[in-house]
Amino acid sequence: MEKLYIIKIGGNIVDNPVLLTECLTAFSKLKGQAILVHGGGKLATQMATSMGVEQTMVDGRRITDETTLKIVTMVYAGAINKNIVAQLQSLGVNAMGLTGADGNLIYAHKRIDSAIDYGFVGDVDGINTELVKQLLSSSIKLVVAPITHDGNGQLLNTNADTIAQSIATGMAKQYEVHLIYGFEREGVLSDVNNPDSIIAFIDRPAYGTLKEQKVIFEGMIPKIDNAYLALEGGVQSVIIGKAEKMNQLINGTAGTTIKI
Amino acid sequence: MEKLYIIKIGGNIVDNPVLLTECLTAFSKLKGQAILVHGGGKLATQMATSMGVEQTMVDGRRITDETTLKIVTMVYAGAINKNIVAQLQSLGVNAMGLTGADGNLIYAHKRIDSAIDYGFVGDVDGINTELVKQLLSSSIKLVVAPITHDGNGQLLNTNADTIAQSIATGMAKQYEVHLIYGFEREGVLSDVNNPDSIIAFIDRPAYGTLKEQKVIFEGMIPKIDNAYLALEGGVQSVIIGKAEKMNQLINGTAGTTIKI
Repeated sequence: MEKLYIIKIGGNIVDNPVLLTECLTAFSKLKGQAILVHGGGKLATQMATSMGVEQTMVDGRRITDETTLKIVTMVYAGAINKNIVAQLQSLGVNAMGLTGADGNLIYAHKRIDSAIDYGFVGDVDGINTELVKQLLSSSIKLVVAPITHDGNGQLLNTNADTIAQSIATGMAKQYEVHLIYGFEREGVLSDVNNPDSIIAFIDRPAYGTLKEQKVIFEGMIPKIDNAYLALEGGVQSVIIGKAEKMNQLINGTAGTTIKI
Repeated sequence: MEKLYIIKIGGNIVDNPVLLTECLTAFSKLKGQAILVHGGGKLATQMATSMGVEQTMVDGRRITDETTLKIVTMVYAGAINKNIVAQLQSLGVNAMGLTGADGNLIYAHKRIDSAIDYGFVGDVDGINTELVKQLLSSSIKLVVAPITHDGNGQLLNTNADTIAQSIATGMAKQYEVHLIYGFEREGVLSDVNNPDSIIAFIDRPAYGTLKEQKVIFEGMIPKIDNAYLALEGGVQSVIIGKAEKMNQLINGTAGTTIKI
């Protein structure tokens, strides 16, 4: 099967023009098919502040009221997505930026949570795998913004890690999919204050132990849960590591590899 | 040849949710291939105001400094484009929203004007006709935001009328192209204060006379100049009229038809 890299870059990269260019340069040199999924970063919060719109975060997730949805749509699908696409085009990559609404790429539903009203936040139901395959076959590299839709005209703010996992899982029957989560740390660390303490491999039993020991906690847990969803869905490999080392993450010489 | 409708809707439609839905409903019922090009409207100016960024207009064109470019990218490619795409999806249309940077759809260069520095404003150099044809053939209806790129990583604010004309002309060899400019008036009026004074047809000699008589003036001149560029480039018909009457404009029973 043909290789397909799904690469997710987080807000710390998106917020830093130098790191972003480094990362996009590595992406542009990738052999094989590739999809970039980007997070939001601080720009949405900055925009909200400059517009006098208060933001509420619960467990690291933004409560998305109507105004906030408009802001994240502008920032993620407009400013960040198109800046990345234009940069990739200048690096010789025929990039195309899409949200989940475009071509019905990612369909979702509004999250129903009895305890917390997250507002216009989407949970992914599925991927338009035919569209993805068609565009990849035309040498187009997709750049996906973390916005989905419900098919009834409603846009939804959606976690970028989940989007990357959903696309990876959705394409796993047709490609040998490698999922890479690029973020601000070297990988999963046994000591969060020591960037050299990278855990090279984590399997299911190790994950259980590391969670019990609170070595893995907070934001890392949904990331690794997403990794396991991907692996169980047929994705070949999942690597988590420092986005600046994208080349090494791609080669498997940096970061933490998650195994079943 | 297969019919292709290029429909441009202006800011007055984009700013009005009721008119926009009417217009998108008409668009969703179109038989044949279709591309929607949208303008910006007042939202960009409102955003700039709420962010305390001053806007300068010269001859109806926005002077686009770096901050303004960021704002129009967010508003046009983010808020407006994705709202339209999500609405069309809910109407059963497989819409895909793109800027000129996406898939290298529209390549442009920064305008050089010895008299006025327009800033990051683009003049169109060409259209990726192969991509347009491929997407249309996959039953995708394109929704194009008035942002282009220069291939060197620079996004450019670009007039939506010009984009509509450029796509129409670019596709004229492969489709029977009909270009429709939907705006706030019934068509070209012989008396600007009388909405019933629609001029049904304008040909070259009539255009010359109407310009001399100042019946056609200001913003209408570049619109009709764009219409003639399209017709000279092989576009089958150009109709200018009230966007709310989209059905009638499509049927040719409303608006002003521009003829060679």
